[in-house]
Amino acid sequence: MVKFINGGVTAPKGFKASGVHCGIRKNKTKKDLALIVSEKECDAAAVYTQNLVYGAPITVTRNNIADGKARAVICNSGIANTCNADGVEKAELMCSLAADALNLKPTDFVVASTGVIGKPIDIEPIKNGLPQLVSELSENGSSDAAEAIMTTDTVKKEFAVEFTLGGKVCKMGAISKGSGMIHPNMATMLCFITTDANIDSKMLKSALLEVVDDSFNMLSIDGDTSTNDTVAVLASGMAENERITNKNADYDTFVSALAALSEKLVKVMAKDGEGATKLVECQVEGAKTEEIAKASAKAVICSSLVKAAMFGADANWGRILCALGYAGVEIDVNKVEVRFKSEGGEILVCQNGVGVEFSEELAKEILVKDEIYILVNLNDGEFGAKAYGCDLTYDYVKINGDYRT
Amino acid sequence: MVKFINGGVTAPKGFKASGVHCGIRKNKTKKDLALIVSEKECDAAAVYTQNLVYGAPITVTRNNIADGKARAVICNSGIANTCNADGVEKAELMCSLAADALNLKPTDFVVASTGVIGKPIDIEPIKNGLPQLVSELSENGSSDAAEAIMTTDTVKKEFAVEFTLGGKVCKMGAISKGSGMIHPNMATMLCFITTDANIDSKMLKSALLEVVDDSFNMLSIDGDTSTNDTVAVLASGMAENERITNKNADYDTFVSALAALSEKLVKVMAKDGEGATKLVECQVEGAKTEEIAKASAKAVICSSLVKAAMFGADANWGRILCALGYAGVEIDVNKVEVRFKSEGGEILVCQNGVGVEFSEELAKEILVKDEIYILVNLNDGEFGAKAYGCDLTYDYVKINGDYRT
Repeated sequence: MVKFINGGVTAPKGFKASGVHCGIRKNKTKKDLALIVSEKECDAAAVYTQNLVYGAPITVTRNNIADGKARAVICNSGIANTCNADGVEKAELMCSLAADALNLKPTDFVVASTGVIGKPIDIEPIKNGLPQLVSELSENGSSDAAEAIMTTDTVKKEFAVEFTLGGKVCKMGAISKGSGMIHPNMATMLCFITTDANIDSKMLKSALLEVVDDSFNMLSIDGDTSTNDTVAVLASGMAENERITNKNADYDTFVSALAALSEKLVKVMAKDGEGATKLVECQVEGAKTEEIAKASAKAVICSSLVKAAMFGADANWGRILCALGYAGVEIDVNKVEVRFKSEGGEILVCQNGVGVEFSEELAKEILVKDEIYILVNLNDGEFGAKAYGCDLTYDYVKINGDYRT
Repeated sequence: MVKFINGGVTAPKGFKASGVHCGIRKNKTKKDLALIVSEKECDAAAVYTQNLVYGAPITVTRNNIADGKARAVICNSGIANTCNADGVEKAELMCSLAADALNLKPTDFVVASTGVIGKPIDIEPIKNGLPQLVSELSENGSSDAAEAIMTTDTVKKEFAVEFTLGGKVCKMGAISKGSGMIHPNMATMLCFITTDANIDSKMLKSALLEVVDDSFNMLSIDGDTSTNDTVAVLASGMAENERITNKNADYDTFVSALAALSEKLVKVMAKDGEGATKLVECQVEGAKTEEIAKASAKAVICSSLVKAAMFGADANWGRILCALGYAGVEIDVNKVEVRFKSEGGEILVCQNGVGVEFSEELAKEILVKDEIYILVNLNDGEFGAKAYGCDLTYDYVKINGDYRT
């Protein structure tokens, strides 16, 4: 039983957070530096972008949590600290400055940056902002931290869940950012997850990998696999459940909680994709293998033409067939069935790979809603998958036509 | 020596063409039916989309030219004749109606359709339009045919070249269409090429495959591999050169001519991509293998973020590095060099994988032009490749937000 509760990264026991404007960004009303700190040392695990070009903070975080331990997260927005000559040095400096301010070790830190690639990061504002950042640490600080990591996001992303392990109530919370440069393969975004569950870092990593594959890796805003993406989980153990050290029933419960939280985050990120006006979710069933199901769902979600049609509330299902056809996996086109679904209803538009007559009026009513489900049945097996994306709009172009200035 | 000359598919000896409005489209000022006919039987070759979902006309054309022979092309725009129950039957009917009107065999025809997927094609307008289409066949008819195959294209695409084989002057001409749903892998478009060169159909196919790989397959407008794409070549032999039956010097000249014509078409199609305001060409050099060069160039051209930056004339080179990083091939990020070039000048923006100081003013002057070259040196080998694309604009979204209505 996983239940959503209020709050974010500070919902679990032992975590404090804060977020301030330190001056990396010019706009003084936009927070740009976030901190999350655990009272106790945590088991930690993370997954990162698969892009060969990756941010310097990733190098540093990888080293810092190689021992499966961490205590804090420091993250700035505005500058990605990627493709700079002295990036690693600067990311290490961020850790040691924060460590000094908190009386921790530099290697206790998960460090992350998000923003423009290729511009050097200025350490001065971070140095100057740290005293305020530390003094504002609070059990209600999750929202401020969530705000500070946003770039082109229009809504703050923070969620929390509650679940029980061996009679002990555990909590798990998360903040995330991600709006553009989002595409499957652990691209996508920054997400920091905290929990007071007691779980060994190896099991934590295993749970994370299981969940990421079906959630963050099935999200695409624009097909661009980013350079800085990181999902990190810190588990404080303060819920005092029996420590999870193997794949037992508690592990499964933990995975369910992580999966529920991740799916929620992914859907909110998809809906808040750059310029997006709606969430588009493609649910594939009847696939011969899981790989086919995933590749098919992703191809539909990634198609610029499908995305533009969704923006226009146009039931142009031919583009969905087209995307399935180039997904690079073996499907039997003549068995494919396509439906559109939303709060406005459900409608069958294609059966056995060919069009069926349908009411354009009803289709319009369905597609003008802001959460659209494209249901694809391949009628060829037992596997399914979901992929998450959004529509392609004028505003995506506007936002990205001149992001740096 | 390959020289561009005026004209299109009717430039070579023995070819006539025409284009009329027959009524598949509602807009009476838009021609929608095209015909190309050779005086003599031709050697023929074609390549098609790799999409598993492909148009019925492709099935029929494949059968018709299985013997390496063809004499005519019939093509409509407005409806793709794809994903319909009776598509093959209708495509065959198009051939037999045209054959009757011209006193040819149905199997003499290359047949193609382009437009909306999944709507049944109405044969009546084609039947009714054929008498006029045949009566208007002319040696000056290339332009009308080029117009008739356009969908969202804003400019007619027709070009011709002249070259010499064994002292005989040969000509080669082409018309093409393609604006959206264009992406590497012989997706892309319709292109009909005629030549009076005398060349065996096997050699013709070999030449076509060589050329397609570096031209049409390196073009991407929107990442969507279309369902109906076809490049077909008809060679009448009327230039009376010694028949090309193996890969000799004449074959090489023929390939050069085909390559020059194809590159021209691809660039014009890229620049006329849906909503595009400019041609964006990525030239990669210094790659360890040709595969790496091609994959790198394609990744840059396909990135929505790079495309949007080009629209905004924003020298956001970090997005180019990002795209190179997820291209799926092995590159040494620390060796990468990036420049922008156009009529406005040339500027170095990234060296050894990190940013260099540059004049934003000059970068702007370069990027506001309508033909932009992104020059990438991987400094890691001897191979190069070019990929062709365009910027991502408001109008792409507008055009595709409601294409069907």
